[in-house]
Parts: sequence; C-alpha cells; structure tokens
Amino acid sequence: MKELFGSPGKLSGLMLRLGQCLLAAASVGSMLSAHNFYNSTAFCYLIASMGLQVLWSFGLACLDLHALRTKRNLQNPVLVSLFVFGDWVTAFLSLSGASSAAGVTVLYARDLNTSYCKLQPDLSCSRFQISVALAFISWFLLAISCHTMLWLLAAL
Amino acid sequence: MKELFGSPGKLSGLMLRLGQCLLAAASVGSMLSAHNFYNSTAFCYLIASMGLQVLWSFGLACLDLHALRTKRNLQNPVLVSLFVFGDWVTAFLSLSGASSAAGVTVLYARDLNTSYCKLQPDLSCSRFQISVALAFISWFLLAISCHTMLWLLAAL
Repeated sequence: MKELFGSPGKLSGLMLRLGQCLLAAASVGSMLSAHNFYNSTAFCYLIASMGLQVLWSFGLACLDLHALRTKRNLQNPVLVSLFVFGDWVTAFLSLSGASSAAGVTVLYARDLNTSYCKLQPDLSCSRFQISVALAFISWFLLAISCHTMLWLLAAL
Repeated sequence: MKELFGSPGKLSGLMLRLGQCLLAAASVGSMLSAHNFYNSTAFCYLIASMGLQVLWSFGLACLDLHALRTKRNLQNPVLVSLFVFGDWVTAFLSLSGASSAAGVTVLYARDLNTSYCKLQPDLSCSRFQISVALAFISWFLLAISCHTMLWLLAAL
C-alpha cells in the first residue's frame, strides 16, 4: 500500500477532499449571492462545474472517512482507475469553468471600462472575483489529487 | 520501442504535432485579423497561449522529422519526461486560454444582448468564434499527445 500524500483512505486524502469540497461550495455560494450572475453563461457554467466538484469531492471524502474508520484498503486497480477517471474529468471541467468565468470577470473589471463595475451597481464584481479565485484554488487541490491518483495507478 | 499512436519519432506523432501547430497558428491568425481584439485580456491571453503551443509543437514536429529521417529512437526516459512536462504545461495554458476566450465570446455573442455584435460593428464576433473553436480543436490534439506521452513514460 503506497503512502503518497493524498492517497485514498488516508488522512491526507480526506483533508484534500474536504478542502476541494469546501472551496468549491464557497465558490458556488459566492457566485449565487451575486446579483445578475445568470446573465452570463460563463458564470452559470462555473456554478455547474463547481457543483459537480462538490458532489465528487464530498462523495470521496465520505469514502475516505469510511475507509479510515474501518481501516479498509481502497488501493485496488479498479477503484483507483475510477478515481483517476473521475478526478481528471472533474479537473478538466473545473479548470475550463474557472477560466471562462475569469475571462468574463476581467472583462467586467478592467477591459470594458475601468469604472464599468461602478457604473453598473447591479453587477457584484467583487463577488465574481472571490468566486473565481476560490474556484482556482479548489481546482489546484483537485490537480494534486489527480497527480497522486495517476502515480498510484502507475505503481499498482 | 512502444508503438502507440502519436509516439515521438513516428509518422503519427509528426502528423499530430503538425496538426496542433497549424490549428494553433490559424487560431492566432484569426484572432489577430479581428478588430479590437486587444481590448480584451482574455483574447490577448489566448494569443499568448496559442503562440506558445505553436512554438512547442513546431519544435517537436522538427524533432520527429529528424528522428524519422535518421531513424533515431526518441523514447528514452529523460526525453519522454521532458515531453510529458512540456505537453502538460502547454495543454494547461491552452485550455485555460481557450476557455477564458470562449467565456468572453459567448458573452459578446449571446449574453450582453442578442444584437450586441451587430450593434458594435468594430467587434469581429465571427472571427473570435472561429479562433476559439480552432483553439479547442488544437488543445484536443495536444491532449491526445499528453495521454500518449504519459502512457509511454509509465511503460518505460
């Protein structure tokens, strides 16, 4: 049984999954609390991709917790292959969601007009920025999991 | 010597690299030919990331051609590790560039106003869309290379 940081069924793995889940949930919460977020497809896509990440990371956190309590070994080829596939699909969607929302946020905050956010009081620019930043941090934690899972799969 | 599709030093690898290089160059060309693209940071970022992909893929295409002519074997662990690292960094930048530009393009074409692109004749919306589509196809070809390189590295 490999002892990589963030391995499934380990405390580090559980912490990583909880971090991903909480940050993605905070990103969704921040976006949902902003006015008129639904006017941009990119922001709706960010919510969808982060929502999927919340579900995936929460599910795996529960599995890690169960494995820690019952001292089960989750490192078998079928399970790790499933984790690799799920992690990579989720990471791809999260990165594209965070990037597209970042593109729109930078457009609002800097490109259209330096005072566009102030001129449009119904646009909660600071919440968009917080949401995007949280999404990128959450994606970064997911990327660590992706890396660990791939290494585990290669070693099994 | 493994015979995976898109392996370095193979004809399929050369074709894949040429495809990536040409599509990325076409994406940059389409964006540069659009008026006022520089007003959006996301479009400038797309040009930078696609420019990097052109350089990387062109360099590897030349290396593949050289290996095909001299019948050299490029599949040694140091070289393949370098290819994996370069491919993954370039793929990450390409995906984020294409996604952020896609977010802004969809905002212009659909979200702000259904006729926003028509109201702003200095915005070349169709060229933005073509550029983004080409960037995604180029990224998809790069993702195939990433996958092949990772498999090769695991098998070496």
